[in-house]
Amino acid sequence: MISRTEYLTITTPTRYEIRDITTEVERVCRAAQLQDGFVLVSTMHITSSIFVNDHESGLWSDIMTWLEGLAPAGKDYRHHLTGEDNADAHLKRMLLGHQVLVPVTNGALDLGPWERVHYGEFDGRRPKRILLKAFGVGA
Amino acid sequence: MISRTEYLTITTPTRYEIRDITTEVERVCRAAQLQDGFVLVSTMHITSSIFVNDHESGLWSDIMTWLEGLAPAGKDYRHHLTGEDNADAHLKRMLLGHQVLVPVTNGALDLGPWERVHYGEFDGRRPKRILLKAFGVGA
Amino acid sequence: MISRTEYLTITTPTRYEIRDITTEVERVCRAAQLQDGFVLVSTMHITSSIFVNDHESGLWSDIMTWLEGLAPAGKDYRHHLTGEDNADAHLKRMLLGHQVLVPVTNGALDLGPWERVHYGEFDGRRPKRILLKAFGVGA
Repeated sequence: MISRTEYLTITTPTRYEIRDITTEVERVCRAAQLQDGFVLVSTMHITSSIFVNDHESGLWSDIMTWLEGLAPAGKDYRHHLTGEDNADAHLKRMLLGHQVLVPVTNGALDLGPWERVHYGEFDGRRPKRILLKAFGVGA
Repeated sequence: MISRTEYLTITTPTRYEIRDITTEVERVCRAAQLQDGFVLVSTMHITSSIFVNDHESGLWSDIMTWLEGLAPAGKDYRHHLTGEDNADAHLKRMLLGHQVLVPVTNGALDLGPWERVHYGEFDGRRPKRILLKAFGVGA
Repeated sequence: MISRTEYLTITTPTRYEIRDITTEVERVCRAAQLQDGFVLVSTMHITSSIFVNDHESGLWSDIMTWLEGLAPAGKDYRHHLTGEDNADAHLKRMLLGHQVLVPVTNGALDLGPWERVHYGEFDGRRPKRILLKAFGVGA
């Protein structure tokens, strides 16, 4: 029985950004010597997402444009009465979700051919933490 | 190896409501004497959500307004031909999701500073059940 | 400690389709002789979804109409510069999510009265794989 937890810190240079973090998930899986189980990947901040989709920059651009249409920045949100200006980031993060379970089989991530794990940042320019917990059966 | 399942029943006085249930998740984690693993929190009804976001009443109001814009009540849904009137609740619940995995490390919920577990009700005024399953390694 | 992984292949005759796959999840749970834990159900393709909702054809129709409104096909997506024409499918799949954890208690799926596990296809007419991993404690 294996359970190993790591924390990844990401500071994006811009407010909005999508980043492929699959190699980090692979690294944690290997470091834990996990044979079968999963890696939970969960952002610890409420203005960012973890999601699985295609590693394709055109699609990443489409995703950001689409999110801006469904949950636009700069509107008159009540959350902004607290002094914050990031209500759109709280909403965008819920559309994509904040965590995924990456299955591990025979010691490797058990992903389909185009599945990649992504971090979606909607209020960046400061350090954000991601939890990675490898959980399951060892070799 | 620990696996302990509890059921929480919530009856909201109004049709739409957001409620912070983090202390319930903490209680189940402690009762299970879980040292490392996670608590699965999953609503057992298809017109409500479980999600992680900020405990801030202005944001909760923003979320409800936003959901109403994206999945409005009172439209001419086909689901209503069955006699139901809650198709919007089925859709709203999918935007926020119906379950989360709360990681547990060193015997405590491993959440970021602002992460709180919420129940989102979109068709309340009757008892609804939430499953909480603590799963992992004991002390 | 049990961990058993199966792969289900679905080829839908149409591009868009919703299908109830709960009996497949039950089958894998039984085959694994799982007593307590969960079954992870996760689509391995980035243009389809796994979600829990009502088995009701009117609602399924509402879901497809609603998704088309929020993430329409045929728009001028950047992803289509790669030669693909399915950017809408990538977006729709994120609205419903791509995986669920089905809890198992006392040897059976621990679902609420109306909860059913569904596969949502948004770019069908070719074989797609779904991973089902039963994980937990045996009888």
